[in-house]
Amino acid sequence: MRVYLDNNATTIVDPQVKTAMDPFFCQYYGNPNSLHAFASDTHIDLNNGLEKIYAGINAPKQDSVVITSCATESNNWVLKSIYFQYILTGRKDHIIVSEVEHPSIIATARYLESLGVKVTYIPINSEGLIEAKNVRDALTDKTALVSIMWANNETGAIFPVEEIGAICKEKGVLFHTDAVQAIGKIAVNVQGFDIDYLTFSAHKFHGPKGVGALYMKKGKELIPLLHGGEQMGGLRSGTLNVPGIVGMGKAMELAVDSLLFDIPDVKELRDYLEDEILKIEDTFVVTPRAKRTHNTMLISFRGIEGESMLWDLNKAGIGASTGSACASEDLESNPVMEAIGAEADLAHTAVRFSLSRFTTKEEIDYTIGVVNEAVKRLRGISSSYAYTPKNHKSEL
Amino acid sequence: MRVYLDNNATTIVDPQVKTAMDPFFCQYYGNPNSLHAFASDTHIDLNNGLEKIYAGINAPKQDSVVITSCATESNNWVLKSIYFQYILTGRKDHIIVSEVEHPSIIATARYLESLGVKVTYIPINSEGLIEAKNVRDALTDKTALVSIMWANNETGAIFPVEEIGAICKEKGVLFHTDAVQAIGKIAVNVQGFDIDYLTFSAHKFHGPKGVGALYMKKGKELIPLLHGGEQMGGLRSGTLNVPGIVGMGKAMELAVDSLLFDIPDVKELRDYLEDEILKIEDTFVVTPRAKRTHNTMLISFRGIEGESMLWDLNKAGIGASTGSACASEDLESNPVMEAIGAEADLAHTAVRFSLSRFTTKEEIDYTIGVVNEAVKRLRGISSSYAYTPKNHKSEL
Repeated sequence: MRVYLDNNATTIVDPQVKTAMDPFFCQYYGNPNSLHAFASDTHIDLNNGLEKIYAGINAPKQDSVVITSCATESNNWVLKSIYFQYILTGRKDHIIVSEVEHPSIIATARYLESLGVKVTYIPINSEGLIEAKNVRDALTDKTALVSIMWANNETGAIFPVEEIGAICKEKGVLFHTDAVQAIGKIAVNVQGFDIDYLTFSAHKFHGPKGVGALYMKKGKELIPLLHGGEQMGGLRSGTLNVPGIVGMGKAMELAVDSLLFDIPDVKELRDYLEDEILKIEDTFVVTPRAKRTHNTMLISFRGIEGESMLWDLNKAGIGASTGSACASEDLESNPVMEAIGAEADLAHTAVRFSLSRFTTKEEIDYTIGVVNEAVKRLRGISSSYAYTPKNHKSEL
Repeated sequence: MRVYLDNNATTIVDPQVKTAMDPFFCQYYGNPNSLHAFASDTHIDLNNGLEKIYAGINAPKQDSVVITSCATESNNWVLKSIYFQYILTGRKDHIIVSEVEHPSIIATARYLESLGVKVTYIPINSEGLIEAKNVRDALTDKTALVSIMWANNETGAIFPVEEIGAICKEKGVLFHTDAVQAIGKIAVNVQGFDIDYLTFSAHKFHGPKGVGALYMKKGKELIPLLHGGEQMGGLRSGTLNVPGIVGMGKAMELAVDSLLFDIPDVKELRDYLEDEILKIEDTFVVTPRAKRTHNTMLISFRGIEGESMLWDLNKAGIGASTGSACASEDLESNPVMEAIGAEADLAHTAVRFSLSRFTTKEEIDYTIGVVNEAVKRLRGISSSYAYTPKNHKSEL
């Protein structure tokens, strides 16, 4: 059996999304900006796709939802254009991010630091959560931007974007949220909160890789990161990725539907998996369930290196993660567990399971069995796991 | 009949490319950076794709061919990272581009000018060509970069990148060429010339939209435009667009093959179309055939607005262009014709026909007929076309 439980890294393209994209490779292949029927052939579907994307985050028409190539581009765009518009000009000198942002925020912030920008990294608490008051306390007269993710990719922890947005608005500071892990998991409504910029990416909600977006509130438009042929109202140039946009639109429509119809099932499966694994001695989940996205659990198995657990899972056909795929080639300890202040040995033992609407009960039953076997085997050969847990069979 | 003659704007995805991409949406959908079989399932095809892309421009393994989302990203990357690395630091203050670069170079250069960067725009001559000596004359001790395209998108004019590269190397100046219109039309060998950076884009050679690349010579690596998760050796972050890279690889392989097998046929069809249209009174092509890519012709019809001709062609099912699709929504005169110094009325009359290996003799025969009819009709109602050409039938 093959079981994919790494949906926070990327997701299967929904077959309905693939079907929607298919005609735009070899049949309706025109450049939408051209002046002939090969271009206009694409316009209805392109506009429908864009409308679905706007609708998915409840963006009003006067705001901009600009299609990019990925969330990394969107995140770099926000931070770098804030640098050009507010910091290089000397008006501001400071930005605030959390210490557990995605690498595309952290690495960009560190780069801006090398250019002289002051950066505050807001810590998470022992539950893996951000406290809005820490953001308020970090604000200065020279703060240009606060960038705090909506939901954390590792733990699923939901951060208080409503409260942080309100603080930023009160203080006249721009607010960006990386909502990559929120779309399809939380009802994202940019009109409900004080959000100036919002990042998301199709491949995290069963859309194609290579297409993302940046929402920008009217009047807060950033200068382009990609200057050029004036596509996307001059905000982001480059030939429009027609199949990508059509696919993202369909994926967004399905993701919004899934908020109503699939999330209860996914949550039930995640809770079941978590309950069963927590029955194993010396296993730990940090962030309370009620404060997490419904599909995610980050669980530590004392005495077992996360990569060892992944190895056993993988041999059994199960794909999981020790953390962000964007940093998983280097076998470091989980950065969120480190930020929480977990004991060093626990920080190395965290494994992330992230489900999707395609996950089945059968797959979760199978996974529970494999995890139990793996724990027995790996604790049996562990040098750091000194005592025998209650359910540890003697023949191991 | 429908005839697509706007291949410099974008191209049909080769069905073989589509077939190569198809499994990577719903079947092999893993994030290649993850640590499980859903990731490693993609590795062989991903590496094959990258190898074909390297091979297509004869890039040695020690150099970098970094996958981007489009040529616009690649071009912005070069100019903006040169700004950060050489100009913001005060080491240099000047870049050189041609006045007929793609908008993604021109608009970026103009943005850098607003930040205080000195920019020289090298003119084209009356044949639409760049003279390398003008580049040499423009160089200063503070020149950081020369960026001159390999082949022009409007005219097909081939620019002297070999000579310009040699001048730059001699003077210790970095050289970038936008080769978007060269791949699949000219044998591009980055080891043959002194090229530090080279831009290209899959959708211009029958690959998918939303994927491009930037070649960088070893030792000349730019700082990232997209910081983040350290994909692409840390040079360009963002989840790898697996189907896009696989598709670009296949498209590159086919494009290189087509240099041997298809170009003679495409050139013959283009020459035939050009010969037949030039038989019409008062038609003009600026750049000599021997100095152009084999698939392109930019032709002026005195007394006929380019957009009027496009309208008639489009009614008959033929897609052509008055210039770059990246600027074609605003009905301005052709920028290359303006740069050449054409009379104002001629600059508004240019129409670009760009063929591909999918173009057929039957399509060209049909196009010749339609163009002849359109010229008669449009000159018959033209206010600026004052006299009756020889082949103008009296009933019009």
